[in-house]
Amino acid sequence: MIRNHNDWGIDSLVAQLREVRVQSLETRHRRDKPPKLPQRKELRNVVEGLSAVLFPNRLGLPDINDEGIDYFVGHTLDTALRTLQQQIRRELVFIAEQSHSVTHNMDSRANHITRTFAEKLPSVRQLLDSDITAAYQGDPAARSPDEALVCYPGIVAMTYHRLAHNLYSLGLPLIARMMTEQAHSATGIDIHPGAKIGDSFFIDHGTGVVIGETAVIGPVKRQLLGDTFACIKPLP
Amino acid sequence: MIRNHNDWGIDSLVAQLREVRVQSLETRHRRDKPPKLPQRKELRNVVEGLSAVLFPNRLGLPDINDEGIDYFVGHTLDTALRTLQQQIRRELVFIAEQSHSVTHNMDSRANHITRTFAEKLPSVRQLLDSDITAAYQGDPAARSPDEALVCYPGIVAMTYHRLAHNLYSLGLPLIARMMTEQAHSATGIDIHPGAKIGDSFFIDHGTGVVIGETAVIGPVKRQLLGDTFACIKPLP
Amino acid sequence: MIRNHNDWGIDSLVAQLREVRVQSLETRHRRDKPPKLPQRKELRNVVEGLSAVLFPNRLGLPDINDEGIDYFVGHTLDTALRTLQQQIRRELVFIAEQSHSVTHNMDSRANHITRTFAEKLPSVRQLLDSDITAAYQGDPAARSPDEALVCYPGIVAMTYHRLAHNLYSLGLPLIARMMTEQAHSATGIDIHPGAKIGDSFFIDHGTGVVIGETAVIGPVKRQLLGDTFACIKPLP
Repeated sequence: MIRNHNDWGIDSLVAQLREVRVQSLETRHRRDKPPKLPQRKELRNVVEGLSAVLFPNRLGLPDINDEGIDYFVGHTLDTALRTLQQQIRRELVFIAEQSHSVTHNMDSRANHITRTFAEKLPSVRQLLDSDITAAYQGDPAARSPDEALVCYPGIVAMTYHRLAHNLYSLGLPLIARMMTEQAHSATGIDIHPGAKIGDSFFIDHGTGVVIGETAVIGPVKRQLLGDTFACIKPLP
Repeated sequence: MIRNHNDWGIDSLVAQLREVRVQSLETRHRRDKPPKLPQRKELRNVVEGLSAVLFPNRLGLPDINDEGIDYFVGHTLDTALRTLQQQIRRELVFIAEQSHSVTHNMDSRANHITRTFAEKLPSVRQLLDSDITAAYQGDPAARSPDEALVCYPGIVAMTYHRLAHNLYSLGLPLIARMMTEQAHSATGIDIHPGAKIGDSFFIDHGTGVVIGETAVIGPVKRQLLGDTFACIKPLP
Repeated sequence: MIRNHNDWGIDSLVAQLREVRVQSLETRHRRDKPPKLPQRKELRNVVEGLSAVLFPNRLGLPDINDEGIDYFVGHTLDTALRTLQQQIRRELVFIAEQSHSVTHNMDSRANHITRTFAEKLPSVRQLLDSDITAAYQGDPAARSPDEALVCYPGIVAMTYHRLAHNLYSLGLPLIARMMTEQAHSATGIDIHPGAKIGDSFFIDHGTGVVIGETAVIGPVKRQLLGDTFACIKPLP
């Protein structure tokens, strides 16, 4: 590559970085096909879009009226699902390459999974309504369910979790984990997307809460004050 | 609504989501008036603007000079207060609708509250200066008060808290809580906006600290190492 | 300053804020030279750019091919180093003014430090590869090293730490601390940039982990479940 040398010796650094990268790829037996992974930024857009779809009045457009709301929901949903389908396709190819499987039909498989995921969105909204009610009833300081929705980190974490858990159940553990880690970063609440959580689940405060992959919770109202659990065990 | 069916059955999903939404609104007795809540993104802009107003050299424009600084502060303050007034109006309407009160005079009430809030900004700066000094003196690793301001999550949390507590005291618990939850997300420090905290307050590390609504602290220098408290009790 | 009075008495507020600011500057003996500090937003851009440089396939452009990758790495590195050099210059001036030293040769000193920092980037990549391997081997739920890189907050924290520690060692404690506090905010993991951490270091979950300035760790594989340490002590 012809390039002017500048003060930092960019050319030499680029060559050294390539060498380290190639070594790493060889260790992972991926010399000729570096992995194409799902993308954090796109997944963040998907969850933001789906949050607006699920709660268009409170988390979507601020002054939407009843006449326009279905158009807003439909358009936002369409955009979010298109982005999600691309990301699902990336994970399907990644999984297939890891197990040296063939990678045909990826588009139609990604489309099928996206559709199955989308069909569950109304039930996700119902589950989140039950979580919001539990948060409102469980916190004497809460003045309205709306306050729980727009303020409480536990509701943010459960929104990410309920979406991510459905993707996890559809065979997409990487996208699911990337989503829940975004919730972890925003809330300090670390829920593995494999955890099975029934309705009406409320996490108070939250920072430091860890819910493991094999956890099975509820359906009962549970309050957690910031604490660390390797795994919340099934109820007896 | 006429719309082309696409792969995901958007039309059917939009209809189902509407149905769930209407059920939820009916449960909350809000069938014809979904709540218009304050907006997280706007409140984040308000706090960022006010932080620049309070610390224009260190958190505002990077290379501002003494001649231009008052213009910068005045303009940034004006923008932040306009946005805040709109958000305050939203909460006033929301509160009035919840208690089935009349909603007239909302603009002038929002304006009055905004002005009262703004008048306290110089004292907020003085309190934050005392917090910064406490952080600098309390942490042997700190090399300057400036380091505390631009690095320490405890100062970020106190900046949000001191602004939010004034709004809480002016009858805006929702906006106040939304602001402190943004600090909670950024710092892991969970301070209820109702907590009364005197000058020179320093939170070290911070992740997992919880200070409850009824807490009354100081004025004394206090250091908290990341730990969880349901409530920090009044000093004897 | 001529300005129309508006509802909030901006003019009076600006004057009061100036007064508080001047008092604060006088207390800090900086009346005529308010400090010019490094900037959080620019440092965030630097770390994002360097992350893409270190892992161009997985954290850089999503669909980069082998022909274009060195151009991408070279350009992104050049941009990140230019920004970093400006920030380093700001800290050098800040340090010199604090100790009332002369401030000449700042450009060439900043350039020299930037070059020295850049030369270590290939070894940073190798260390991070060892951290990723440790995370993958240490977590039975991990399906691939790639999952650790794009999901695990511990890897985010170590990426920031390994870059920041090199800047700390080059005499830039403020930039280093600002960088690690950004990781602290994103992950809940609080590592002081002065901590010396050997290869293959893995932090599981992470929220609430604190590693102090004088810590010396490894090189051994270590797993930390979210917990608080004033300081992780040197191994015997």
